[in-house]
Amino acid sequence: MGMTIKEQAKTGLIPKIVEECARFENIEPEILTKHLGAGSVSIPCNRVSRLTKPFAVGKGVSTKINANIGTSKDRPDAAPELEKLRVALEAGADAVMDLSTGGNLKEIRKAIKEICSVPLGTVPIYQVAVESVEEKKREIRQMDVDHMLRVIEEQAMEGVDFMTLHCGLTLGAIERLCAKKRLMGVVSRGGSLLMEWMLYHKKENPLYERYDDILAIAREYEVTLSLGDGLRPGCLADATDGAQLHELIILGELTLRAWEKGVQVIIEGPGHVPLNQIVANMQIQKQLCHGAPFYVLGPLVTDIAPGYDHITSAIGGAIAASSGADFLCYVTPAEHLRLPNLEDVKEGVIASKIAAHAADIVKGIPSAIEKDIEMAKARHALDWEKQISLAINPDKARSFWEESRKHGQPSACTMCGEYCAVKTYGRAMDCLHENK
Amino acid sequence: MGMTIKEQAKTGLIPKIVEECARFENIEPEILTKHLGAGSVSIPCNRVSRLTKPFAVGKGVSTKINANIGTSKDRPDAAPELEKLRVALEAGADAVMDLSTGGNLKEIRKAIKEICSVPLGTVPIYQVAVESVEEKKREIRQMDVDHMLRVIEEQAMEGVDFMTLHCGLTLGAIERLCAKKRLMGVVSRGGSLLMEWMLYHKKENPLYERYDDILAIAREYEVTLSLGDGLRPGCLADATDGAQLHELIILGELTLRAWEKGVQVIIEGPGHVPLNQIVANMQIQKQLCHGAPFYVLGPLVTDIAPGYDHITSAIGGAIAASSGADFLCYVTPAEHLRLPNLEDVKEGVIASKIAAHAADIVKGIPSAIEKDIEMAKARHALDWEKQISLAINPDKARSFWEESRKHGQPSACTMCGEYCAVKTYGRAMDCLHENK
Repeated sequence: MGMTIKEQAKTGLIPKIVEECARFENIEPEILTKHLGAGSVSIPCNRVSRLTKPFAVGKGVSTKINANIGTSKDRPDAAPELEKLRVALEAGADAVMDLSTGGNLKEIRKAIKEICSVPLGTVPIYQVAVESVEEKKREIRQMDVDHMLRVIEEQAMEGVDFMTLHCGLTLGAIERLCAKKRLMGVVSRGGSLLMEWMLYHKKENPLYERYDDILAIAREYEVTLSLGDGLRPGCLADATDGAQLHELIILGELTLRAWEKGVQVIIEGPGHVPLNQIVANMQIQKQLCHGAPFYVLGPLVTDIAPGYDHITSAIGGAIAASSGADFLCYVTPAEHLRLPNLEDVKEGVIASKIAAHAADIVKGIPSAIEKDIEMAKARHALDWEKQISLAINPDKARSFWEESRKHGQPSACTMCGEYCAVKTYGRAMDCLHENK
Repeated sequence: MGMTIKEQAKTGLIPKIVEECARFENIEPEILTKHLGAGSVSIPCNRVSRLTKPFAVGKGVSTKINANIGTSKDRPDAAPELEKLRVALEAGADAVMDLSTGGNLKEIRKAIKEICSVPLGTVPIYQVAVESVEEKKREIRQMDVDHMLRVIEEQAMEGVDFMTLHCGLTLGAIERLCAKKRLMGVVSRGGSLLMEWMLYHKKENPLYERYDDILAIAREYEVTLSLGDGLRPGCLADATDGAQLHELIILGELTLRAWEKGVQVIIEGPGHVPLNQIVANMQIQKQLCHGAPFYVLGPLVTDIAPGYDHITSAIGGAIAASSGADFLCYVTPAEHLRLPNLEDVKEGVIASKIAAHAADIVKGIPSAIEKDIEMAKARHALDWEKQISLAINPDKARSFWEESRKHGQPSACTMCGEYCAVKTYGRAMDCLHENK
């Protein structure tokens, strides 16, 4: 078996995929190779994947965003999810996770993988739970450990590029969880499934116990481990507690074990977090997990806005990414209420992209502020076509602008009309120059 | 002429309106009186106003939000604006500004004032410009200084509660502006109108020169001055420059002069600001303006998202308010493209409320986190009716949730269905208790 790309990078070899990613980021491949070797950058790409849009995530590169799609038992059809995939990619998602729990999971995943140009992620424990219940007619708590490993290997063979595995959710972390009496307990689906198994069997987390076996699979197929935060807070009041931090400490230990085997790692993070705790959460993750890329879900800065959680998470995500997070999982307006529809997927991706872009300006990603400068110039020139073409969603910008045009202002919008500050400023500057 | 409420507060008297506001905030009237006397809190309420929903803004009280409405020459009808007023109040706006520049401005303002339960703000220079052009058939640059003062007095007599006046936009600040070559120049409508006048006449800002006269009017009618930032940055690249800061220094000086006359002050701030410059902007304002309440428009953390500027400004507003801003002016999805419609107004108010609420949690406003705790409890109990009733927009939450219910899950949503983490966690905890 050959070296993984992380091992190649450590020896100073520049893997071909690094060159591709470096070109996209407009940075030197040598720098990206160094970060990949050190673990501060990951490039999720299964050995069998032929991605047309791979990406690097982590130190020195732009913030990436992920869109979740997937069926549920109530909505088991693949077709709407494939449509969501198309919309997510069109809107600019850098990665997609298939979180299906309804219908024929293997067929759905295959259909997604076939048309997915970007890295594909999964949460294998979902398939284990669904197969236990649907095929084996068992209760979820009777999931079989070998079955878990088989599913991980099966998905790895199929070409899944990164997998969320809640390997750090140990009995020690659960002890802290139970001691504290959280308001929301566990809100991670995968985390809760494992926790039920552990408490029913009175045994340690099988994904922790069998971590070496998992690493062997990950190494063989070049699967990037997205080490899940099963104990992420599900409400503001539960944020940044002993249980969450205990799991994060374990994830830091598991990171080093993965790196030793040449396996790439991404660390998953919260969740629901008060605005003033976000920066500390980012710094602690980077410290405990040795600089591994950080992948956050939100964070949502308030719990009271169902229907608007793309906004609550854009606020948290922008702050998180500005202070270290590398990868934002989108949250759609439908979060907490129902499966997202196409419109939700689009709005969710765009809200995440806004957060990522605002952060990339702070991170000093060279191409980020350039876009804002171009927009400022187009606004100053009252060049509406240019403004629309530069907009994060040109279709929406155009539809709003068309309504202004209907009301007869060829050069200004209906907000200010002839009292447009840009025009007045222009006349003012003319006075200045005439005065000279 | 009697004392202003600020003067009363300074002597230790507790004005009746302070008691009302203190009750709303659930704080001691003595504390609010102290802050009002010191200028760190303002309570905009014209002497002739009978507001059913007055508010205090500033130190120790919840973050307030303002919704702008108003006609333009292209859309001169009052009726749609009155409908927007209704929607804004229903969605929870604490204040409303009438920025009309089309139709019969006096009639429109009167109609708004009649049904406006919250403090009403205006930008008097708009009326001056419109009357100069429409009635006097002059160019904007030929606005008359006495006319400016007459309009301010007229609006004060009518009961306007706070007025944006760009008194700090001096020749000195313009000199800095011209030296630097901003990308966007001046984007404040009022600021640009004054600047054109100043550069045409080669004279100092008349609102600066006649500031004592303005203070006399403000004192007589108990109008709160919202000292405008005519040189606020209109794009990220222009943020936090010498021109902006020069104006802010002047606003700090004007604040002390207003306070000496018993006149209340609010300071207006940016604008478009990179995320990592927001905290510094807030700290500098509080320092230069002696702790006066800070009223920000955004800040927008990127320029590239027309159609989504309620989100770009919710990100900036949440950070701003968490680090000192007291009053957020909403930005709607229509910003930069057209006058907002009813839906835009509603979405704009809600996005601002989310930002204000996320910040109030950080500020330690007692009632803020309580709402999130109630929501967490309702989520843990899978009590959907309670969740909907606690939502920032119950109508939207309900409409999303109804689509879940259609698919047959009585107790979970279609996101997770039977693999709902809350349910799994419940079973896991049952195992724990059975084990004991």
